[in-house]
Amino acid sequence: MVQRPRGTRDFGPTEMKRRLAFESLLEEQARRHGFSRVQTPIFESLDLFTAKSGPGVVSQLYAFQDKGERDLTLRPELTAPVMRMVAEELRNETKPLRLSYYGQCFRYEEFKKGRYREFYQYGVELIGATGPLVEAEVIALAINMLTEAGLKNWELRIGHVGVLKQVLTGIGLNGTSESGEPPLASAMRFLDKADFDGLKALFETQSISTDFVAPLKQLSELKGGQETIASARELLSTMDGVSLEALDDLESTINSIGQLAPSPPSLSVNLTVARGLDYYTGTVFEVHVPELGGEGQVLGGGSYKLLHLFGLADLDPCCGFGLGFDRVLLALEAQAAAEGRSEVVPGEDDETPLLAIIPFNIEVSEVLDLVRELRESGIRVEIELRSRKIGKAMGWADSIGASYALVVGPRDFEQGQATVKRLADGEQLPVALNTESILSAFNA
Amino acid sequence: MVQRPRGTRDFGPTEMKRRLAFESLLEEQARRHGFSRVQTPIFESLDLFTAKSGPGVVSQLYAFQDKGERDLTLRPELTAPVMRMVAEELRNETKPLRLSYYGQCFRYEEFKKGRYREFYQYGVELIGATGPLVEAEVIALAINMLTEAGLKNWELRIGHVGVLKQVLTGIGLNGTSESGEPPLASAMRFLDKADFDGLKALFETQSISTDFVAPLKQLSELKGGQETIASARELLSTMDGVSLEALDDLESTINSIGQLAPSPPSLSVNLTVARGLDYYTGTVFEVHVPELGGEGQVLGGGSYKLLHLFGLADLDPCCGFGLGFDRVLLALEAQAAAEGRSEVVPGEDDETPLLAIIPFNIEVSEVLDLVRELRESGIRVEIELRSRKIGKAMGWADSIGASYALVVGPRDFEQGQATVKRLADGEQLPVALNTESILSAFNA
Repeated sequence: MVQRPRGTRDFGPTEMKRRLAFESLLEEQARRHGFSRVQTPIFESLDLFTAKSGPGVVSQLYAFQDKGERDLTLRPELTAPVMRMVAEELRNETKPLRLSYYGQCFRYEEFKKGRYREFYQYGVELIGATGPLVEAEVIALAINMLTEAGLKNWELRIGHVGVLKQVLTGIGLNGTSESGEPPLASAMRFLDKADFDGLKALFETQSISTDFVAPLKQLSELKGGQETIASARELLSTMDGVSLEALDDLESTINSIGQLAPSPPSLSVNLTVARGLDYYTGTVFEVHVPELGGEGQVLGGGSYKLLHLFGLADLDPCCGFGLGFDRVLLALEAQAAAEGRSEVVPGEDDETPLLAIIPFNIEVSEVLDLVRELRESGIRVEIELRSRKIGKAMGWADSIGASYALVVGPRDFEQGQATVKRLADGEQLPVALNTESILSAFNA
Repeated sequence: MVQRPRGTRDFGPTEMKRRLAFESLLEEQARRHGFSRVQTPIFESLDLFTAKSGPGVVSQLYAFQDKGERDLTLRPELTAPVMRMVAEELRNETKPLRLSYYGQCFRYEEFKKGRYREFYQYGVELIGATGPLVEAEVIALAINMLTEAGLKNWELRIGHVGVLKQVLTGIGLNGTSESGEPPLASAMRFLDKADFDGLKALFETQSISTDFVAPLKQLSELKGGQETIASARELLSTMDGVSLEALDDLESTINSIGQLAPSPPSLSVNLTVARGLDYYTGTVFEVHVPELGGEGQVLGGGSYKLLHLFGLADLDPCCGFGLGFDRVLLALEAQAAAEGRSEVVPGEDDETPLLAIIPFNIEVSEVLDLVRELRESGIRVEIELRSRKIGKAMGWADSIGASYALVVGPRDFEQGQATVKRLADGEQLPVALNTESILSAFNA
């Protein structure tokens, strides 16, 4: 028998109800923050992702050639496609643009729990404006989404790639080099590995005072919440020539976030973020959930440069995040299970009642007008289609999750009235065989 | 610059608003009819589609191999994936299942207007029950969807593959043959081509009375609405040994549709449908819209056998349809344009108001608490992020489609009040700088 491809999933009615509720909760938050949904193709030119991430990325892609031997790939993420779209179609739209997106992404790797080859990402990009308020708008949206989703016990990790860079250039390290690794990059590497002897040796070859090693060590060891920034400011003000601009920006971003969103359950500030410097330009942030084990990352983003690849350098940097739709759901499911809650996503069970109509020993045509009227009034209606006997038909109504069952037999039909059974408690509600009477029984 | 792959599309904010409104309109109808959304992967094993449609289908597919040399393909349609899913995951669920789905499909062909390589399909399948009422439920849903979408001037073409088959077997033609084409299939081919000499010659070799050629010619020439069935019944009752069962079933289906949905603008009954006999088993139907030119088909479906491929022959036949999401939208757009309407999909412009907040010569932090409160109350809020001057900021508010603009300057802030400008008519509404006052101005 043909099977589902490895690393992919099917979603049945129960799972989909939850996923649609989660998607619409995210969408509602994005909308309130002024973001509008866009959509790009499932596959893109391979070039799009190698331009962003280098040729090494190909081994993790579902790349293929079309019959015209064009190199294509299933998209591994959605930021690059959205930027391509902005360059191709939204060049002349009023800026800033606030765009949101949701869809399947693909990566070729061994799959494990919560890491599928086909996975779903929700994300946003704010394009054409920059600075602390822009970053705060984006991060506040992320916080509002997770808060509204009911996620608990999560940590927002926030940093700014400019802080360390400004310190190191401020004390005289070079960001470029004619051959080999630039001294700035070497210093970041040493700091990342906590190799302070290496850092000291580097400073000596670069004729930079080794007095700077101690405060840099202290900076890299600063850990904590927002108070970390004050400690860093104190530390950096002892270092001549070091700009405090990135630190001030980060503080301003965090202050605005505090006004625009509730406090995250946990906030941790990391001032020596050094990764993705070619791509990221300002504040970077991640959300982690310990329940997921390992790194437990469910969301990540920041301010980044990408539009220069499309000749739109003047719109760089943009700010955005990607939310791992499946991973947040996994965390919500784990937390609901731990608390014995059946509702995982708020609102997933909010539905108009489902009414099961069971024609019994009558021509089905006798009830079809009623079925149509009830549906037109917004009620969900299923008719029993297998001519089951009463007992089995009631079992059917129960197992499809109907809230009410209406059996219509020959006498009911003659008298124009029948009984609606509320399945939760077995209560029998007498009704006339018309929409108004049945609707009012639902509210009884 | 990297471009979008050939035959694919991006959807910007304006198009997406329409597409999301259309999707949710379809979803709401599906829900009322008891259908629940499911989702399957973007790619499947190539086998899934060759099993359904034969090896010839491969040339129209985006087929590729993964690194384990498994043959995969982007899905060209969604019925086979949903059936695979039913067999793999929903085998033990209460039947019948009423499933709906929506998503991208892919076909490799030269693209032209309304025919893209990546296109979107909405569809439903009713699985585990069969007969005229099942078919009526499915077709009524299709009619309700198109009616609610506001589509006009469309034609429902309905037929039943059993009618002709029962006539031909009834007069003695064989449906199987030890070598070559079965006589039944040959006869259908002659009727389809209106080759009545060929049909007569076939009857002679099969020792079947050539008296049957004349009524068969008449049958194939019957054209019209529901009255066609009465004419056919009259005709067939003159032919000994011919079963009227399929014709009765079709009539019963059409009668039930009449109760469950409004009348389609045009109904045409075709009793000599002969295509897809291996796959279709009962009623088949299509919706055509002349505005699209050519065949103008926007929807198609019927009762079919497919689950036997997954060892679930007892659940065959199922009944469903696929709705060409892009093609229906194209027709709606053409009709709206012809009538000079700007709203294409009902409800596409129903949104909570967008408020543009313009901090002017004040610290932006002065308005952020208000921004948060307004968003929490459900209002869409954008803050001006580029520090434009008043005139340009009002232009910005207008061009992002804001309904209202609120400028907050130093004096406004001190006095706790300001003016909301309704952008549609320039009306100035005095407000206090709090959520309640601003919300009541929106209702003024």
